[in-house]
Amino acid sequence: MNWLYYFDLFGVFVFGLSGGFDGAKYRLDLFGILVLSLATSLGGGIMRDVILGSHPPNAFINQTYFFTAVLAGLVAFFFSKRVERHFDFVQIADAVGLGVFAAIGAAAASAYGLGWFGIILMSVLTATGGGVVRDLLVREIPMILRADFYASAAIIGSIVYISLDSLGINPDISLAASAATATLSRFIAMRFGFRLPQARGKHF
Amino acid sequence: MNWLYYFDLFGVFVFGLSGGFDGAKYRLDLFGILVLSLATSLGGGIMRDVILGSHPPNAFINQTYFFTAVLAGLVAFFFSKRVERHFDFVQIADAVGLGVFAAIGAAAASAYGLGWFGIILMSVLTATGGGVVRDLLVREIPMILRADFYASAAIIGSIVYISLDSLGINPDISLAASAATATLSRFIAMRFGFRLPQARGKHF
Amino acid sequence: MNWLYYFDLFGVFVFGLSGGFDGAKYRLDLFGILVLSLATSLGGGIMRDVILGSHPPNAFINQTYFFTAVLAGLVAFFFSKRVERHFDFVQIADAVGLGVFAAIGAAAASAYGLGWFGIILMSVLTATGGGVVRDLLVREIPMILRADFYASAAIIGSIVYISLDSLGINPDISLAASAATATLSRFIAMRFGFRLPQARGKHF
Repeated sequence: MNWLYYFDLFGVFVFGLSGGFDGAKYRLDLFGILVLSLATSLGGGIMRDVILGSHPPNAFINQTYFFTAVLAGLVAFFFSKRVERHFDFVQIADAVGLGVFAAIGAAAASAYGLGWFGIILMSVLTATGGGVVRDLLVREIPMILRADFYASAAIIGSIVYISLDSLGINPDISLAASAATATLSRFIAMRFGFRLPQARGKHF
Repeated sequence: MNWLYYFDLFGVFVFGLSGGFDGAKYRLDLFGILVLSLATSLGGGIMRDVILGSHPPNAFINQTYFFTAVLAGLVAFFFSKRVERHFDFVQIADAVGLGVFAAIGAAAASAYGLGWFGIILMSVLTATGGGVVRDLLVREIPMILRADFYASAAIIGSIVYISLDSLGINPDISLAASAATATLSRFIAMRFGFRLPQARGKHF
Repeated sequence: MNWLYYFDLFGVFVFGLSGGFDGAKYRLDLFGILVLSLATSLGGGIMRDVILGSHPPNAFINQTYFFTAVLAGLVAFFFSKRVERHFDFVQIADAVGLGVFAAIGAAAASAYGLGWFGIILMSVLTATGGGVVRDLLVREIPMILRADFYASAAIIGSIVYISLDSLGINPDISLAASAATATLSRFIAMRFGFRLPQARGKHF
C-alpha cells in the first residue's frame, strides 16, 4: 500500500509537470500553470474515484496530492525556459504519467472487484483522463486521439497487470512491471513512430 | 428488463458507429477510432450512472457493452470508405442513439425516483453526453449546440416517456415510443431544417 | 440553510445569464441558449455533488434550480441585443457567479468534513466548473486559463471562508464575506488588468 501511494504521487508529479510545461508553452500566468498542473495530475484520479464510488476522492482528503501537483507546476514555471528547447517535455512527462496511472488504475479497479474489461477500461481512463482534461483546456487535439500508440500503451500496461496478478505475483512487482511496460511501449512508439493502421479520410 | 438491456446495447452500437465514423473522417488510426467509439457510446451512460450513484457504472461490470462498442468501432473502421460518400452516417447514427438513450435515461431516472424535471435532465444528459464527449475530442462544435432541434428531440422523448408512464402503459412500450418519437423528431429536423428562433449575434 | 439555498439559486441565475449571453453571442437558437444556460449554471454544482457523493445531485431533485437556469436563459435570449453593446455581460455575470459558487463550494466541502485543501479544491471546482463547461462547448479558451486572476479569486474566497469559519463566525456571514471577496477580487482584476507573473512562451 505504501509503495502504491508513493508511486501514485510520482504519477501526480510527472503529470503535473506535463500540464505545467504545457501551460508555460501557452504563456499562462503562474496561477494558470498551477491550475493546469492540478487539472492534469489530479483529473484522472478524481474520475477514477468518482466512477468507483470512492467519495470524496483521494485528492480531496490527502493534501500531499495537492502539494505534489503544485510543486510540479512551480518546477514547470521556473524551468520551462531552460528545458523547452531540448526536449518535448510535455510528451515525455506525459508518457511516464501514462504508465504509472495505467498501473494504478488497474490496481484500483482490481481492488474494487471489477473483471478484466473493467480493469482495462479503468486503467485507460485513469491513465488518459488527466491528459484529456489538459488538452481540452488548452484546445489541442487530445493525445489519446492523435498520438501514436497512446491508449494502446495503457491497455498493454493493464494487461500486464492482469496477467501477473492472476499468476499470484506480488502486487508491487505487478504494479511496477505494468507501469514500465506501458511507458516503454509509449516511448518506443514516440521514438520509432510506430503506428496502427489508419482509415482514409481528412486530416485534422 | 431484458428488452431494456438489448435496447441499451443497440444505443451503444449506434453511438459507437457515430464515434467510429467520425474518427475515420479525421483519419484516426484503428485504436483512435476504437477510443472514440468507446467514449461516444459509453460516455453518456457512465455520466448517468455516476450521477445517479450507481457504482461502478454498468459499462465497467458488463463486458457486453465494451464489446458492442468495439464492434461498432471495427465496423466503422472497415466500412468508412464505402459508406461516407452516400450519407452523413455520423449524424444518422447519432440521431438513432439520441432517441434510444433519451428513452433509457428517462427510464433510469424514473427507476431512481426522480421527478419529471430530473427525468428530463437525465434523459437529455444521457442522450447527449456521449456525443458531446465525441465532439469535444475531435474539436467540433458539439451537436447539442449547433444541430437543429437536438436537445429538444431528447426532451420530447422524455416527455413521451413520462406521459405514457403516468398513464400506466407497459414500460417497454413507453420506452419504444419515447425513443421513436425522439429519433423521429430529430430526423424531421434534419430533413426539413426545422429551427427554433435565434438570437442575433455572431456566427461560429 | 435557507439563506444558503437562495444564495445558491442566485449563483445559478447569474451563471445561467453568462451561459445564455454567450450562447446569444454565437447565434445559438433558443434551445441551444437554454442548454448553455443549464450547463453553465448547473455544471459546477453537479460536479461538486458527484465528487462529494451526494446522489442524485441537487439539480436533479429540486426543480427550482432547473427553472432558475431556464429563466436566466430566457432573459439572455430576449435581452441580449439590448445589453451586449454596453457591457461584457458574460464576464460580469461570470464574476458574480464565481464568487457565489466559490463560497458555496467551500461551505459544502466543509460540511462534508474536508480539510482546508479539500475545501479550496472544491471551492475552485464548484466556482469554475460550470464556466469551463460553457467555454469548452462554445470552443473558447476557458476563462480559468486566460482570464486574469480567476481561479485565484476563488481561492481567496475559500480562504476567507475557512478563516472566518475557524473563528466561529456565523456561517451566513462567512458565506457572504467569502462570495463578496472573491467577486471583488475578480472585478478588481478585470478593471485594472492585474496579472500574475507569466512564463515566456507562445501565445494562444
